[in-house]
Amino acid sequence: MPRYKLTIEYDGSDFFGWQRQKDQISVQEVIEEAVFKFSGERVAVFASGRTDSGVHALGQVASMDLERAFPADKVRDAINFHLRPARVAVLSSEIVDEEFHARFSATERSYLYRIINRRAHLVLDHHRAWFVPQKLDVTAMHEAAQVLVGTHDFTSFRAKECQAQSPVKTMNRIAVSQIGEEIRIELSARSFLYHQVRNIAGSLKKVGIGKWTGEDLKRVLAARDRSVAGEMAPAWGLYFVSVSFDETKQDVGHDPSVGPEPARQ
Amino acid sequence: MPRYKLTIEYDGSDFFGWQRQKDQISVQEVIEEAVFKFSGERVAVFASGRTDSGVHALGQVASMDLERAFPADKVRDAINFHLRPARVAVLSSEIVDEEFHARFSATERSYLYRIINRRAHLVLDHHRAWFVPQKLDVTAMHEAAQVLVGTHDFTSFRAKECQAQSPVKTMNRIAVSQIGEEIRIELSARSFLYHQVRNIAGSLKKVGIGKWTGEDLKRVLAARDRSVAGEMAPAWGLYFVSVSFDETKQDVGHDPSVGPEPARQ
Repeated sequence: MPRYKLTIEYDGSDFFGWQRQKDQISVQEVIEEAVFKFSGERVAVFASGRTDSGVHALGQVASMDLERAFPADKVRDAINFHLRPARVAVLSSEIVDEEFHARFSATERSYLYRIINRRAHLVLDHHRAWFVPQKLDVTAMHEAAQVLVGTHDFTSFRAKECQAQSPVKTMNRIAVSQIGEEIRIELSARSFLYHQVRNIAGSLKKVGIGKWTGEDLKRVLAARDRSVAGEMAPAWGLYFVSVSFDETKQDVGHDPSVGPEPARQ
Repeated sequence: MPRYKLTIEYDGSDFFGWQRQKDQISVQEVIEEAVFKFSGERVAVFASGRTDSGVHALGQVASMDLERAFPADKVRDAINFHLRPARVAVLSSEIVDEEFHARFSATERSYLYRIINRRAHLVLDHHRAWFVPQKLDVTAMHEAAQVLVGTHDFTSFRAKECQAQSPVKTMNRIAVSQIGEEIRIELSARSFLYHQVRNIAGSLKKVGIGKWTGEDLKRVLAARDRSVAGEMAPAWGLYFVSVSFDETKQDVGHDPSVGPEPARQ
């Protein structure tokens, strides 16, 4: 029974998040339906990270098993045939070892948060980025963000509904850069708390407009209190970019961040 | 009576092109209506280049006169206030000399044609690029494109409906480059024939898939016959990027490319 690793792009605007729900359309559901249409098999497709309504993916990874063995490229093309015209596509498909699991084998997840910093409202980036008209200081944002790199209790940036066992996470990297009017916040960690990226983006905006310094951000982190951090940035600026794997290793339960449910973003 | 130069972004998917029409919504109409709402004045807004239905603009330029003088930034913000939530925005506004005219003062227009070259259908680039699943040779496309640089009779790349007085145009630059799965064709000329950019993009695709060489493209250009060139590429891959001006000079009628109507793209 071959296991497939799928790399997936989707436009979050069209879905009520990754996870299958009773009454609302999800990315998981449309993919599982497309798999059924081409293979006749009812399978569960597991993702590396769940995403909320409105959040996009450039490189979500999912794994699934099929009874019948098909060539990997045929699986990609056949799922895509049945997905069209939905705004979700399988970019690549590989046959992987049965030890591989999109969620449990993941060793690092990378997100991008896009801000468009200009006076005019968004047009081509409508629902693809956060529109911030106040002038942002990108250098200050990048420098302050370094306070969050490393292992910390991220309670101040954690949604109330977060189901992770521990608020302690290790942020491997945060980089804030600017290309023209676009500000890009890139974040990597083994795993994230629910809404952690969007809460960090909202706080970095406060640094960018000059309301907070790096010292303030340090105080917010140390407070371990959600109510002191900045507003949560909107879903449509967030992109799930990529996942790294150690495919030789299964690490269920070794890391407190791997709880019964992977934290949504 | 101050003259304003407006730089404008729009999503072509939402409009039946730039030019005002009787029964269909156009970019010109929504801008002229927004100007009326804030100023009470019925004005004509002239563009540097008309664009067809589906064609996007990152930096369309338009000029208009108002009876009352408002600060340039106030004009930008007030038009945008009344444009929202339409997918069109004024990026900047300047007060210019009364000699300035968005169409007649333009000395160079630059377009971008975007192709996404991959197996999976488009998701985040749906209606923002041309989806080409066959593998394209970008180096061959760039080299062949150089055949079109310079002054030529572009009849082979001209739409039947083109109203320009002469098919002779001077292509200042064509560059074809690749970033990941995206292929970008950048073109600059004083002015273009109707559908010239999309017809060139369609022919360069033939080079990219190996059906044509640079020699074939040379023959197509020399044939001065639309029926021998490649298919016309779709509107949604085309972006009107920018316009250059010589603001000290009015050159109406000196260049055969400046006909009674600027050629649409």
